[in-house]
Amino acid sequence: MTKKLVAYDRSHMKIGLKPAELKSAFRSLASQKQRGELGFLAIPELKKELAETERLARELRKKHKTLVVIGIGGSDLGARTLIQALRKRGEGMMAVRFIGANTDPEEIADLLAELDWKTTVLNVVSKSGGTLEPMGVFLLLRDRLVKAVGAKKAAARIVATTDRKGGALRTIAEREGYRTLPVPGAVGGRFSVLTPVGLFPAACAGISIRRLVRGAKAEFEAFFEEKDPVRNGPLAFAGLQHQAYRSGQGRMAVLMPYAARLERFGKWFVQLWGESLGKARDRQGKTVNAGQTPIAALGATDQHSQIQLYNEGPFDKTVTFIGVERFRAELSVPKAFADLPEIAYLGGHRFGDILNIERRATAEALFRHGRPNGTVMIEKITPETVGALMAFFMLATAAMGELLDVNAYDQPGVEEGKRIIGRMMGKG
Amino acid sequence: MTKKLVAYDRSHMKIGLKPAELKSAFRSLASQKQRGELGFLAIPELKKELAETERLARELRKKHKTLVVIGIGGSDLGARTLIQALRKRGEGMMAVRFIGANTDPEEIADLLAELDWKTTVLNVVSKSGGTLEPMGVFLLLRDRLVKAVGAKKAAARIVATTDRKGGALRTIAEREGYRTLPVPGAVGGRFSVLTPVGLFPAACAGISIRRLVRGAKAEFEAFFEEKDPVRNGPLAFAGLQHQAYRSGQGRMAVLMPYAARLERFGKWFVQLWGESLGKARDRQGKTVNAGQTPIAALGATDQHSQIQLYNEGPFDKTVTFIGVERFRAELSVPKAFADLPEIAYLGGHRFGDILNIERRATAEALFRHGRPNGTVMIEKITPETVGALMAFFMLATAAMGELLDVNAYDQPGVEEGKRIIGRMMGKG
Repeated sequence: MTKKLVAYDRSHMKIGLKPAELKSAFRSLASQKQRGELGFLAIPELKKELAETERLARELRKKHKTLVVIGIGGSDLGARTLIQALRKRGEGMMAVRFIGANTDPEEIADLLAELDWKTTVLNVVSKSGGTLEPMGVFLLLRDRLVKAVGAKKAAARIVATTDRKGGALRTIAEREGYRTLPVPGAVGGRFSVLTPVGLFPAACAGISIRRLVRGAKAEFEAFFEEKDPVRNGPLAFAGLQHQAYRSGQGRMAVLMPYAARLERFGKWFVQLWGESLGKARDRQGKTVNAGQTPIAALGATDQHSQIQLYNEGPFDKTVTFIGVERFRAELSVPKAFADLPEIAYLGGHRFGDILNIERRATAEALFRHGRPNGTVMIEKITPETVGALMAFFMLATAAMGELLDVNAYDQPGVEEGKRIIGRMMGKG
Repeated sequence: MTKKLVAYDRSHMKIGLKPAELKSAFRSLASQKQRGELGFLAIPELKKELAETERLARELRKKHKTLVVIGIGGSDLGARTLIQALRKRGEGMMAVRFIGANTDPEEIADLLAELDWKTTVLNVVSKSGGTLEPMGVFLLLRDRLVKAVGAKKAAARIVATTDRKGGALRTIAEREGYRTLPVPGAVGGRFSVLTPVGLFPAACAGISIRRLVRGAKAEFEAFFEEKDPVRNGPLAFAGLQHQAYRSGQGRMAVLMPYAARLERFGKWFVQLWGESLGKARDRQGKTVNAGQTPIAALGATDQHSQIQLYNEGPFDKTVTFIGVERFRAELSVPKAFADLPEIAYLGGHRFGDILNIERRATAEALFRHGRPNGTVMIEKITPETVGALMAFFMLATAAMGELLDVNAYDQPGVEEGKRIIGRMMGKG
């Protein structure tokens, strides 16, 4: 069996698994896989795209200092997550800035004030090529870049990540001669982090995107090899969330990494879980208004913000910790003030150990308060484990879609808002 | 009547107010105020502390470039919120860094690698003086500072914000000769942003803390002057949340500012609302397991992450937008690609207008999907309006505490976890 990079500990969940339901969900996913319907599972096979992404990043890294990524939602959260978790420092690595997930003029003005156009590359990301926020911001940044370095040089410093064939951004890219990277048609936005959408910014920041994809591949393979649902991490995770959701104990699913570098991982999960599973209708068209509300927290920080509520408030949420066994840096609390017992006990403890003690203590306290909680463990934060963690939650999302019987890959509920915005802005 | 800096629009809430309940909550708060029991209402009267904070910040700003704030929870979130919202750039302003809300060794190592000890001041913040995370980080940073500049100079560059009389940090500060600022005894951690806890870092960053406090004062006064609960913003807000909570329509309260500078405001609100109101017992000691779960979102970003779920998922959450009428920066989308209708309509629109159109459209779409939502409006992001916004939500929290009949000022649910941590770390 493929080695699992991610371990799921559910001993604090206090909810029995229903193996029959999980086996049925597993069979359904396995047959969708067989029919090539689960687009995100093809990620490890996108070898041409991976090589193209690596090559372009390597070329641009040599000459330029800053990459500005212009995207929103799935075209923004994934790359941010990778860079926060894995960014390398040092020669030849580009600084990566993100904009376009908003149209806040103050935020854009702040970025413009800091950019040096001589060493900046733009990466505009939109599958459809018509997304309001990033396309609006792109038009402004393109205009400034052209004014600063001229149209020809500007075109050489713009990378468009978009659909292979259609859409306004593809048209513009071809007309103006930008380099392009493809958004694979079969992979939806919120599942696209390990395609050129997320991988190109990651590669510019010096992250090994091959190792990322390798980690995801190992997790995908482990999932389909592990036919015992009780031992299958993503499947067991989905099954427990589903039962907690149905009983009302899990209206919300909190994800709480105990690692500063994984803070944004929570936001990535929030989109993945919320947008995939929050659906008005099931696959038969019946109105269900389903969906667990995902919440991103961070340990140990949120022990001093949200844990009071989680321990004592309504019995309506599950908490899933992400734990890291070993940290890259090792630092200890110096021994000092031996006569002050309130703090003397801290001396000599390593900070990584303290963080893990806090995680285990918080899990134990929640358990004693009768709150279901589980822990997803990785050994270290590496490209492989981050890729595997992402695959874990993509698989869990797909499994939860089966259990809730909803289409996890569309987003009909955002259309109304888009229509209203279009009308208010005079779109034809 | 005092001019209101914050306007609350509840036309999309679709929930009737119960004026009698609100009047009773108002009377209870008014009499607590009279008896001096609502500690946070005294903030505008802390004139000595304000002057002391201003003076010390002015002095340190002259000679030093960076302030490192070491705090967690209420000793961290408030200052971060102020600085993100209002930071000034330019000569004589200190860069403010935050650490100690976590004990992640990688995060600490990153900070240590970047600090220039010659121009750095430490501000350690802990009311009790015994908080694990910041005190652990403080002991390490103090050790490094002493090694870099010597014990005497180090002591002159440490500011301890702590209780006036007791605790380990007070003892250390007196023994080593640090400058100190007081955490007023009557103001709880999560209500402390407009005391030296949040105001000192803000002042170091060049923010007018007088204007902040003035804004809060105006909102406090407006609250107690406005006896019609239907027209009293924080009271009406609490009343609507309470009814939504009781009916199950508002198990969660989403706060979604449409302004990048107010993103952290959401996190500050999450602690305030969650930790104050998430309680196992009511004031009579009856088990209630009460509390709405607060969720921080950001517009327009989260339209592409969470709005699918909010529009189509379970009817279990309210959404409150924060809107800003005018932005400091004005930027427009350049007109381009007139032949591409998918994006040509964007040309000429101002980014601030787009952001407000998106907010109004999202509110309208939620309303059409039958989801209760309201909007808190400010004219511009200024120290006065940010101070007033903070006062608005502190007052709403106090009012919600009355409606739920819980003690909004304690946090008994975190004790179990602290005991377990202490035991695991060999604390006596």
